[in-house]
Amino acid sequence: MSIILDPAAQDLLFREARTANTFTDEPVTDEQVRAIYDLAKYGPTAFNQSPLRITLVRSAEARERLVRHMAEGNRPKTATAPLVAILSADNEFHEELPYLFPRFPAAKDAVFSERRVREGAASMNAALQAAYFIIGIRAAGLAAGPMTGADLEGIRKEFMDDDHTPLMVVNIGRPGPDAWSPRAPRLAYDQVVTTV
Amino acid sequence: MSIILDPAAQDLLFREARTANTFTDEPVTDEQVRAIYDLAKYGPTAFNQSPLRITLVRSAEARERLVRHMAEGNRPKTATAPLVAILSADNEFHEELPYLFPRFPAAKDAVFSERRVREGAASMNAALQAAYFIIGIRAAGLAAGPMTGADLEGIRKEFMDDDHTPLMVVNIGRPGPDAWSPRAPRLAYDQVVTTV
Repeated sequence: MSIILDPAAQDLLFREARTANTFTDEPVTDEQVRAIYDLAKYGPTAFNQSPLRITLVRSAEARERLVRHMAEGNRPKTATAPLVAILSADNEFHEELPYLFPRFPAAKDAVFSERRVREGAASMNAALQAAYFIIGIRAAGLAAGPMTGADLEGIRKEFMDDDHTPLMVVNIGRPGPDAWSPRAPRLAYDQVVTTV
Repeated sequence: MSIILDPAAQDLLFREARTANTFTDEPVTDEQVRAIYDLAKYGPTAFNQSPLRITLVRSAEARERLVRHMAEGNRPKTATAPLVAILSADNEFHEELPYLFPRFPAAKDAVFSERRVREGAASMNAALQAAYFIIGIRAAGLAAGPMTGADLEGIRKEFMDDDHTPLMVVNIGRPGPDAWSPRAPRLAYDQVVTTV
């Protein structure tokens, strides 16, 4: 047995977990989001840069503004999910580096003085953290519905400033009726892994 | 209790898990990598595009070529880890889409005909999968040492073709003596999460 993680946990996080397309109307509380963040925040990033930022879309008015920027096929679920979160990368993450990476506080200027370098690092590392957040949602017994089918630049203009780059929108809640599409196939090991 | 995942699993994957800087010489077998892949492959990607590719650097000769492209501070651990994997994004992932996303096989041409669009999607979604892979390594009771401090373009030229973009190098193995730096702080919830 190469995997030592409990089989029930494997099912909860990976094997049985699925992207939900419908949700019940049971609310997702701030306490739940706090617990998810407090677990997912430990996932590793380069220089511990932790560039992920999370915008919880809670008001009806903000939800309406968001739905307008979603691809048509994503609108009904984004309109009805108990909670919707916009995940973005903070391109000015380096301001926090002296606190976040005390081993090498000079990294702020020595590595990340250029905006272009920061943007690349922020998108990549925020994507890692988005995956940890999705796993964290599942660890809370909830279903995640991550979506990139949206006018992300429109979402940026609507909800954030120039220093942030939205990566995806995530519906969060308990799965409703007919929540799942059939499980799509995965690539075989030999299609993905090569040895040199 | 908002998190239903078993506390031991929370520790294994997030709370106690750490980026290892030294390793024992216990080998990491292909069987272990297969088991890690077979778990991590279920993590969600957009259109199930699954662009992550994994290059296992097993031969001494390949290891030497890789080490030369690493940042100086990353060379000793990359030279001595039981297994080193290069994680990359396949920018031609769309060739597999008719198989991977049977609900909308036309996505291959309708969404991903432009290379520039594919590159953005591949990097983002391969980063999500890199995070699932790191979690999978931990689920196997092993430590991961992900690194972006490297000449990634040099690694591309050394090990792959123009269709692949390396994202990071990951050391894999059992932690050795003094494997851990002190745990770096994380951002507080209110620094990361806003509500609209």
